[in-house]
Amino acid sequence: MKQAIGFIDSGVGGLTVVREVLKQLPHEQVYYLGDTARCPYGPRDKEEVAKFTWEMTNFLVDRGIKMLVIACNTATAAALYDIREKLDIPVIGVIQPGSRAALKATRNNKIGVLGTLGTVESMAYPTALKGLNRRVEVDSLACPKFVSVVESGEYKSAIAKKVVAESLLPLKSTKIDTVILGCTHYPLLKPIIENFMGDGVAVINSGEETASEVSALLDYHNLLDATDEEIEHRFFTTGSTQIFKDIAKDWLNMPDMTVEHIKLGK
Amino acid sequence: MKQAIGFIDSGVGGLTVVREVLKQLPHEQVYYLGDTARCPYGPRDKEEVAKFTWEMTNFLVDRGIKMLVIACNTATAAALYDIREKLDIPVIGVIQPGSRAALKATRNNKIGVLGTLGTVESMAYPTALKGLNRRVEVDSLACPKFVSVVESGEYKSAIAKKVVAESLLPLKSTKIDTVILGCTHYPLLKPIIENFMGDGVAVINSGEETASEVSALLDYHNLLDATDEEIEHRFFTTGSTQIFKDIAKDWLNMPDMTVEHIKLGK
Repeated sequence: MKQAIGFIDSGVGGLTVVREVLKQLPHEQVYYLGDTARCPYGPRDKEEVAKFTWEMTNFLVDRGIKMLVIACNTATAAALYDIREKLDIPVIGVIQPGSRAALKATRNNKIGVLGTLGTVESMAYPTALKGLNRRVEVDSLACPKFVSVVESGEYKSAIAKKVVAESLLPLKSTKIDTVILGCTHYPLLKPIIENFMGDGVAVINSGEETASEVSALLDYHNLLDATDEEIEHRFFTTGSTQIFKDIAKDWLNMPDMTVEHIKLGK
Repeated sequence: MKQAIGFIDSGVGGLTVVREVLKQLPHEQVYYLGDTARCPYGPRDKEEVAKFTWEMTNFLVDRGIKMLVIACNTATAAALYDIREKLDIPVIGVIQPGSRAALKATRNNKIGVLGTLGTVESMAYPTALKGLNRRVEVDSLACPKFVSVVESGEYKSAIAKKVVAESLLPLKSTKIDTVILGCTHYPLLKPIIENFMGDGVAVINSGEETASEVSALLDYHNLLDATDEEIEHRFFTTGSTQIFKDIAKDWLNMPDMTVEHIKLGK
């Protein structure tokens, strides 16, 4: 059987990355774990997020994945370099690809970053962006309400519009021409965010660039697999399988998917 | 001093990749070697191209590069996997990034590939494309006259228009919606090729995607460098420094560049 690419996230947000990977690599097999029971990760301290991220990692590594994508910005900020150092499979996060995509899009080198409190406090985006181009200016904004709007399935509702408008108001007075959706949940709100920010601002979903990086690293490590062996994607959640399934079916267009409930930690 | 990223090509074509890399990574230092005296590589047999590619590689490795980009499709097809296996720095080619960019652009999964005879005969593009998505259909076309048009500096002339129109005529009767410029010289002809192919066809320069892969791999190997140490790009050619400089200055917008003449082989 095929070896899967593993994806971990605090909930359903990482599915936005899975969607892009399956678009670019339609013959790859995916194992996905969303730690919905302990979502959101954003307000937790770094040590706790790192511990949870290791628990998710070990769960998928035990199931024989060939590569790991930390499809959660908060978890990437807390644990990417530690996990990469300790595993012998390729490990990537979403912050570097998101930064790269934003630098390709910006024309005035003024970039906004929306993220959870954990991601914003970690300074991971400003660090990554300036590690690529020192001249860039970064405005970060924590949007603590976005994740629960998405996880509750309300991401197309009037509530979502109100929360987005209230949260993003401070960005309206800046000169940024590019906004990074620095949380993998936020692409589900992308139409509303784009509408609020207006035509002059590019809204960056790191999913596409992350998918390109997955493809590049699988190639670099001779791990690409386009054989016609049977594919069996697997989806695990620590929370409600029904809510997970409703969002995942819609987002990935997989009407027949099954979702398995699992437990992590003590 | 900064450690450079090395680029090798049969001539000036690889400068199209350098331009994209410096756009995305403006603080990185570049060493570039164009084997203009033995250009074109396209009609040579694979063993000879591999030998020349190794000579270029060793020249730059001796000068302490931290990563190697084989910015030439013919050389990538002939030697990438051998060089990657034997060097202890990251080594990438341009065929995989070009394939990835084309698959992102196509809507009907019908892709055309323009390349040298060596690249077309190697089947490297169809192999790379189908290694990502088995369902893609590939039409390859050798364009043996393009490289000399570019190396002679005639890439904006009426001659260029005539050569492009005559060479690409067979593609007009296919259903491809995407064309890969499968030779790093061809982006200098891109405006003419786009004009000839018309609005319905996306023309892919692998440079941008290659630059993203350079960035991803430098990050993955902790080799990114955005420090403000002095940058000294170096350009080497085995042929005429004047012709090289005229094209490079124009393409890279570096009025003050110097080009060093060197010898390779016996």
